[in-house]
Amino acid sequence: MTTGSLERLQEQLKKLPGIGARTARKLSLYIIGQGRGMGLSLSDAIRDAIERYHHCPVCGMLTEISPCRFCADPQRENGTLCVVQDTRDVHLIDGTGAFQGRYFVLGGVLSPLDGIGPDQIRIPELVQLLKTGEYRELILALNPSTEGEATIGYLAELLRREGLIITRLSTGIPFGGDIEYTTAVTLTNALVRRQSID
Amino acid sequence: MTTGSLERLQEQLKKLPGIGARTARKLSLYIIGQGRGMGLSLSDAIRDAIERYHHCPVCGMLTEISPCRFCADPQRENGTLCVVQDTRDVHLIDGTGAFQGRYFVLGGVLSPLDGIGPDQIRIPELVQLLKTGEYRELILALNPSTEGEATIGYLAELLRREGLIITRLSTGIPFGGDIEYTTAVTLTNALVRRQSID
Repeated sequence: MTTGSLERLQEQLKKLPGIGARTARKLSLYIIGQGRGMGLSLSDAIRDAIERYHHCPVCGMLTEISPCRFCADPQRENGTLCVVQDTRDVHLIDGTGAFQGRYFVLGGVLSPLDGIGPDQIRIPELVQLLKTGEYRELILALNPSTEGEATIGYLAELLRREGLIITRLSTGIPFGGDIEYTTAVTLTNALVRRQSID
Repeated sequence: MTTGSLERLQEQLKKLPGIGARTARKLSLYIIGQGRGMGLSLSDAIRDAIERYHHCPVCGMLTEISPCRFCADPQRENGTLCVVQDTRDVHLIDGTGAFQGRYFVLGGVLSPLDGIGPDQIRIPELVQLLKTGEYRELILALNPSTEGEATIGYLAELLRREGLIITRLSTGIPFGGDIEYTTAVTLTNALVRRQSID
């Protein structure tokens, strides 16, 4: 009798990050309940974005234009390369206005248990890019998680060579945070990596 | 240079309930980052569900088949009609297994400030359906919110006639709740609508 189209929509929505069974059910009922216009616009917008977006051949970020607007911008500093996990991080870091150099998107972090080794992410491409000798500083702007830390350690070891400064984002108590409500790991980090006061 | 397809996708996602600008950005980047298969499946699932679903001509719920499986089921009790706000509520109430009668989906609740009066929801259809004289009890299973209460009051007044019992879902302290952590409104309700112990 029923073709299960609502159930298939729910299954597809559940594949999105942060969308559980309950939310998928709510969203799918909302979509079919809003009349044709809204849902078809969403369907078309998804298809359209997928057709148009691809990875920048230089930095690997998702972009409509090739190379991406960061790689194509002659105003950006060439000497500094900021390595991030994914495209979203490029936008977040660029939103701060605190970085004017180039970006490189790894497309993931090392996670041996999930079968993600150096060749599963864009580490070979990063090695290749650094061979140009164009960069003086490499900022490993990865998350201070277990996998992120492991990837930072691996890359720092792999890419070490004379004349290249390798840095990472500082870790510590977040601005506005409180020592009392800081986890032991963060507090240990903040102590071990304490910064000198100029 | 860019056609703004990612921005359009974000705008469409933001129209979904519970999806803000930040989540819309995350989801849209996820969708374009997963490669073609996943996104096209989602796009197709949305289109497919929209093409197939419509409102049941009898009860108004969203359904693939006509009339819906509840209206078509000869096993269900004909004497009791459960009036709900939307299709999701039908599934939630039916999931309890505590109701075996018929459903009617209002498609909203009265909200004069938003321009939603009796004719903007399916109140005329409800009045029409009750003219068959088939129902002995009408359960107004609407949310105990300001609009829900106003709608319950309006319907109880409008539909009052001899031989028709009009009921509502009980309100009170939720099962497992604690008087200490119950809001004043709920506690007042629980007192005013206190139930006799059989």
